Amino acid sequence: MPDLSALLWPNVVAVISASPDPTILRGRLMEVMSSHDYQGTIYPISRSHDEILGRRCYKSIDDVPEKVDLAILIIPAEFIPDTLARCGELGVRAAQILTSGFAEEGGEDGAAVQAEIRAIAERYDMAVMGPNSEGFANSAAALCPTFSPAVDKTELPLLPPWRTDGHITAIAQSGGMGFAFYDQGRPKELPFNYIITTGNEACIETLDVVDYLLDEGKTDAFILFMEDVKNGDRLAQVGEKALRAGKPIILTKIGTSDAGARAAASHTASLAGSYQAYQGIFQRYGMIEGRDTEELVDIAAAFSFHGRNLPKGKRVGICTASGGGGGWLADQCVAAGLEIPPLDPETRATIDAFLPAYGTSQNPIDATAQAVRRTGYGGLARMAAQSDVLDAIIVLASCRNPATLMREREDLKQLTRDVDKPILFCSYTQPHPEAAVILSQAGIPLYGNMRNCARATAELANYRQHRERFLKAPNIKIEGDKNGVAEKLAAAGEVLCEYEVKPLLADYGIAVGDEALAKSADEAASFAAGYGGPVVLKIQSPDVLHKTEAGGLALNLHDEAAVRAGYDRVMGAATDQTHGVLVQAMAPKGHEMIIGINHDATFGPMLMLGFGGIHVEVNPDVALSPVPLDKDGAAQLLDRLDGRALLDGVRGAGAADIEALLDLVVKVSWFAADHGEVIGELDLNPVLVHEKGVSVVDALLVKRLVKRS
Amino acid sequence: MPDLSALLWPNVVAVISASPDPTILRGRLMEVMSSHDYQGTIYPISRSHDEILGRRCYKSIDDVPEKVDLAILIIPAEFIPDTLARCGELGVRAAQILTSGFAEEGGEDGAAVQAEIRAIAERYDMAVMGPNSEGFANSAAALCPTFSPAVDKTELPLLPPWRTDGHITAIAQSGGMGFAFYDQGRPKELPFNYIITTGNEACIETLDVVDYLLDEGKTDAFILFMEDVKNGDRLAQVGEKALRAGKPIILTKIGTSDAGARAAASHTASLAGSYQAYQGIFQRYGMIEGRDTEELVDIAAAFSFHGRNLPKGKRVGICTASGGGGGWLADQCVAAGLEIPPLDPETRATIDAFLPAYGTSQNPIDATAQAVRRTGYGGLARMAAQSDVLDAIIVLASCRNPATLMREREDLKQLTRDVDKPILFCSYTQPHPEAAVILSQAGIPLYGNMRNCARATAELANYRQHRERFLKAPNIKIEGDKNGVAEKLAAAGEVLCEYEVKPLLADYGIAVGDEALAKSADEAASFAAGYGGPVVLKIQSPDVLHKTEAGGLALNLHDEAAVRAGYDRVMGAATDQTHGVLVQAMAPKGHEMIIGINHDATFGPMLMLGFGGIHVEVNPDVALSPVPLDKDGAAQLLDRLDGRALLDGVRGAGAADIEALLDLVVKVSWFAADHGEVIGELDLNPVLVHEKGVSVVDALLVKRLVKRS
Repeated sequence: MPDLSALLWPNVVAVISASPDPTILRGRLMEVMSSHDYQGTIYPISRSHDEILGRRCYKSIDDVPEKVDLAILIIPAEFIPDTLARCGELGVRAAQILTSGFAEEGGEDGAAVQAEIRAIAERYDMAVMGPNSEGFANSAAALCPTFSPAVDKTELPLLPPWRTDGHITAIAQSGGMGFAFYDQGRPKELPFNYIITTGNEACIETLDVVDYLLDEGKTDAFILFMEDVKNGDRLAQVGEKALRAGKPIILTKIGTSDAGARAAASHTASLAGSYQAYQGIFQRYGMIEGRDTEELVDIAAAFSFHGRNLPKGKRVGICTASGGGGGWLADQCVAAGLEIPPLDPETRATIDAFLPAYGTSQNPIDATAQAVRRTGYGGLARMAAQSDVLDAIIVLASCRNPATLMREREDLKQLTRDVDKPILFCSYTQPHPEAAVILSQAGIPLYGNMRNCARATAELANYRQHRERFLKAPNIKIEGDKNGVAEKLAAAGEVLCEYEVKPLLADYGIAVGDEALAKSADEAASFAAGYGGPVVLKIQSPDVLHKTEAGGLALNLHDEAAVRAGYDRVMGAATDQTHGVLVQAMAPKGHEMIIGINHDATFGPMLMLGFGGIHVEVNPDVALSPVPLDKDGAAQLLDRLDGRALLDGVRGAGAADIEALLDLVVKVSWFAADHGEVIGELDLNPVLVHEKGVSVVDALLVKRLVKRS
Repeated sequence: MPDLSALLWPNVVAVISASPDPTILRGRLMEVMSSHDYQGTIYPISRSHDEILGRRCYKSIDDVPEKVDLAILIIPAEFIPDTLARCGELGVRAAQILTSGFAEEGGEDGAAVQAEIRAIAERYDMAVMGPNSEGFANSAAALCPTFSPAVDKTELPLLPPWRTDGHITAIAQSGGMGFAFYDQGRPKELPFNYIITTGNEACIETLDVVDYLLDEGKTDAFILFMEDVKNGDRLAQVGEKALRAGKPIILTKIGTSDAGARAAASHTASLAGSYQAYQGIFQRYGMIEGRDTEELVDIAAAFSFHGRNLPKGKRVGICTASGGGGGWLADQCVAAGLEIPPLDPETRATIDAFLPAYGTSQNPIDATAQAVRRTGYGGLARMAAQSDVLDAIIVLASCRNPATLMREREDLKQLTRDVDKPILFCSYTQPHPEAAVILSQAGIPLYGNMRNCARATAELANYRQHRERFLKAPNIKIEGDKNGVAEKLAAAGEVLCEYEVKPLLADYGIAVGDEALAKSADEAASFAAGYGGPVVLKIQSPDVLHKTEAGGLALNLHDEAAVRAGYDRVMGAATDQTHGVLVQAMAPKGHEMIIGINHDATFGPMLMLGFGGIHVEVNPDVALSPVPLDKDGAAQLLDRLDGRALLDGVRGAGAADIEALLDLVVKVSWFAADHGEVIGELDLNPVLVHEKGVSVVDALLVKRLVKRS
């Protein structure tokens, strides 16, 4: 991976080619760059101008009197390769290729040009961003090589000067979306240190940037807008690195709908991975999905302020002077997975001393405007935070008029120094900009949307819990006969029937019940007699994948006559490929689950766990995960199923043996980790989970046709 | 219901009592009222001041030299009754009782005072709002008797002057929430004609206001924030009136969580109805639920601009210059239930003429910034709107800089005159205020949140479809032996067993299969022989409600011996109350559903339809509706079930006889409509829906213990 320092922190920047005309992009770029107090040197390159915005122009990068760190290329696509190569020869270490110099005026074959760009970047070890990028902003350096109006000079400084930590980096392929995060977040006093738009990612990809910034250590939370992921392993690897570092990734992946995928595919000309596989990776590594710009920014805000002070649990106290608003926020919090417990009597007594008769301290604490005038919002939050039953405090207020908060300015700063629980503010009116400043200086995020405030608080608690589990999980030790199974898989045909799959599973410690392959009715009868209870017969043939429909299945055979008759019936479905008939002791009833392995185009082998039965066809309740898993990971995967509570036993169905189920999931995940690359599909369907134990009642493995090219 | 005209449109207002001190509520009230150009007369009543803000004060309302229409009472609670009565004597026609005059300084028993207020209001036929209200605003009259900072005089007029229709009224018990809607909506150029906060609703309730305003005819969409509904019938009645008038109600009902309900209950000291029952009413009458302030306002915005131009379907075209943003918006639209169809070739060809090679017209239409500079956003929307495959157009743009829109100002006005499909704008950056003005003048709403924009568009289409269905539905004619069943119900005990319920259902045309009550094993055997197939035996006793657990159920009895043995076994569960054993022909398999009638505390009899089986215990998939229903209403109820598609037949289960199911639902709804007041609970569980026909396999009716007080 190239070193991004010259790209992000250059001392000398050349703009090829610059213009003084702010109505065209090359001129807008100069305008935006010049409006900020960047301390390095900017050299405009222009053949037609001697000076732009007070800076002397040079005819060519060859003429620049010192070594250039970063070249900004905004020239027609046809000139890009030669110019980039010349930059490389001159020792330029980084380049940013902006949109309007690429396909827009060129009409060249984009893919070929991109390959050429990549080759040149590699040859000269240059960090090259783009093409089709909208540039970036390094707000600490006041360097904004972009034409985005989002970083135009305004009354607000690029970075809130009092924020010394909690920095957010936004990265997007799309320039519009990347700068939109900044545009929405800056008025909330959020400190964005970088906004980076990667465009077509011919060289540097979004995940490369995250990886670099994790090493750099200046970013505390990431907002990513992803259209595609070219390398699934890289997402997992960078996700894990971020989680270990405690730097949350808040992201959206477009293409959850066909129409969205159509847009993503046309936009980036690459295949989207299955969305459920993405979710499996996101959830494994604690990456947090947001659904719109504001939600992503609002979740990032919580981590920006409270990333070092995450709540120990999900119990929230709501402090407000609006009874109606407090009730609404409570509903939102519960919907987001938080708890709003009744306050303890001791804390209530403390608060009640300030309340009029029509207020209540129960939680939501509706203190009334009268009491808030006496205690201040900070004073109220301080009292609530003393309670042992609360992990975080949300103050719901109208921040339209900042007068109240102005009076509390110093109190609020002291409050966050004294209280070790996260405190968040939510305004039910449009907050005054000064309110955001006062709260930001006190270390408190301010929300303008109750639902987002509730979700962000929940994500703080979720992230802490998830990360603690992840960090304490030991390395997963796979127990299985890897080499032996690999040999058997290599020797087998493309489709492995149940009787072939089960021994492979057994090599990974997965119990197989009484079953054997019979080649005659006599053998079948003999096996059945040995098992001593009713049996099932199943045709075993690689070209009979749907046994029921083909008549290759006989259930619940109680005696020898039935077994013999069943054998003949089942063999009616036989084909040339038939290996015989599997005789299997009938499993007792149980909860019907599905466990499988799928090979995702982006992420490779993924384990699938879900509920079986007819619901799976209409409302599939399944979740995917990368492999391998330990028991804790398997439990988290199980918890993602909507119907999880069914396994605890309800009317007509006993509790399921969760331990046995998790054990099975773990072992299948080992199998997937060792052999997933040669497995196209493994289906254990159904798996019956009994009150005691599990039964794998059917199994099918289809090998993966590995592309040879 | 009192006449609200004097409250909302008074010529003469008295403030009892007023203060010149803007740091107290009585002074803030005068400040806010005086800041606007109200054309009527305001008389401050004060014992300690001669003049306030240039207005002469009077010592008492008795001294005011003309007849007062509206008295604003902001005095201690203890003085409210006498003062209100004196107002009544003087012919004052309306009163608004504000918060700070009530419990805050009084410590009186609130309920008793409220009863007294109600009595006085009735005695003098006064329209009395409050107590504990934050007042209201009539923006067309520039009358703002409130201390809410949301209607402080600002640069924005109270109403956008160019908006002649599409007016929105916000009504809330909570003052904070009521004015929050205005506060969030006004910067979006939405025309709020009234903001009304009803407080404790001692006299006038939220629904009274809606009812009045529907008659008044100046409001085109309502935003309601409801904490409780005192009269469920009134919600249904007003909901229907609004739907018939085509005036959508967009609302939230707090208390969906326990904590939220706790807040609602403490805040208003009244019982919340079951949330599912609320949803049943909302959905029946097309009332649209929002989840946060912004979402409610954003849905109302769509109706404000396009209420007279609702889309004919759910097919949306997305026009943008941001490929990434377009894909994201497409995902949001699909999640909201909209469709983003590929554009037709003809329209594509028209658009393609403007696009560079890296744009796409497929939909989302990523025109690129280059093409938009040529076509304008309006021009792009105009081309897309020609397509027969689209019902509405969303333009996704950055409206941070209004320059582009300023150039298009007149084009956009012409666009909405020429195009008969709704057009909406969504900005992925913080929109510039002028952008909202330009679009508002052109009749186009501007969104700052993609998710809300998608949802609002979907609600436009949903509302049109729902209203058209509702209006064309004929009056429901109930066919059943109302009097006969009423007599039988009156004569029956508190609990009616299956054999008693079925004949009552039969009186409403609900088919009953082969079944009869046996008093002996001989009788049971004889009935079974007559039915000719396997039978079920069930103990019939009002004190055996759970037959399975009590051993009072025997299934699948094939021959006489089994029936006789079963009879004896089942009679082992007999009690003194036992009426006998129901012998019932076994029904064939089918989709397991539940149909029931519940008596909701707020809404009375509600019909419940849902899926049976064990899922109902953990993830209940049920929906409620008021009664009666016609077949179309029953189909809409069925469509609300998540698992609806299961009934179309999937692996292992055939398609269900939807017609028969709907017919049964309709007939049960008739039964509920006629007898729901004396039914506490009716459970038909399960109802088996076969490929042909339905079977009601169990039934239980518990009569309602009507309170006598």
